[in-house]
Amino acid sequence: MTDFAETPAPPYWAVIFTAVRTPEDEAGYAQTAEHMETLAARQPGFLGMESTRGEDGLGITVSYWDSLEAIAAWKAHADHRTAKRLGRERWYRAYRLRIARVERDTAWSR
Amino acid sequence: MTDFAETPAPPYWAVIFTAVRTPEDEAGYAQTAEHMETLAARQPGFLGMESTRGEDGLGITVSYWDSLEAIAAWKAHADHRTAKRLGRERWYRAYRLRIARVERDTAWSR
Repeated sequence: MTDFAETPAPPYWAVIFTAVRTPEDEAGYAQTAEHMETLAARQPGFLGMESTRGEDGLGITVSYWDSLEAIAAWKAHADHRTAKRLGRERWYRAYRLRIARVERDTAWSR
Repeated sequence: MTDFAETPAPPYWAVIFTAVRTPEDEAGYAQTAEHMETLAARQPGFLGMESTRGEDGLGITVSYWDSLEAIAAWKAHADHRTAKRLGRERWYRAYRLRIARVERDTAWSR
């Protein structure tokens, strides 16, 4: 995903997910990550997502939501729960997840 | 930088900087990015930073701060202002900057 999230005027919510991958099961991880992106985009209150991973295995994914309720509903989604369990079992060495309220934003482009 | 930011208990603040690089001046960019990381870490109220860039040129850097005042002071720092100007002139095709108040966080590791 190379695009920016086209978020509305603040306030809105950000879920900042920072994770270090294990070297295991790249194919299974990639397939599930793609499915999660597609599925998240269909959830009520989803506003967009920005995601990247460096060669060192550190990845940052920020998803944007219109409310805490929307974030809670996505967290409780059955497929998302399964992906999270597999993530802990196979794909991630460690992660941090932060939920934050976006108060200001700026966009710039050439 | 492969480490997670060891942030305190919420609330605290996150600056989410998402940017697409131009292909220009990799050496100058890398030097300035390293200087900005070192300098940011010395500012009052700095809590940590997580940063990664993918092969497609999309980078996400999240820095954490203890207050909006600390973020404003870092924004006004002379070296930071110079780096920002050069970023617009040379290094970035586009960027988004969001300031958010972290309300909850979770850490997991094996």
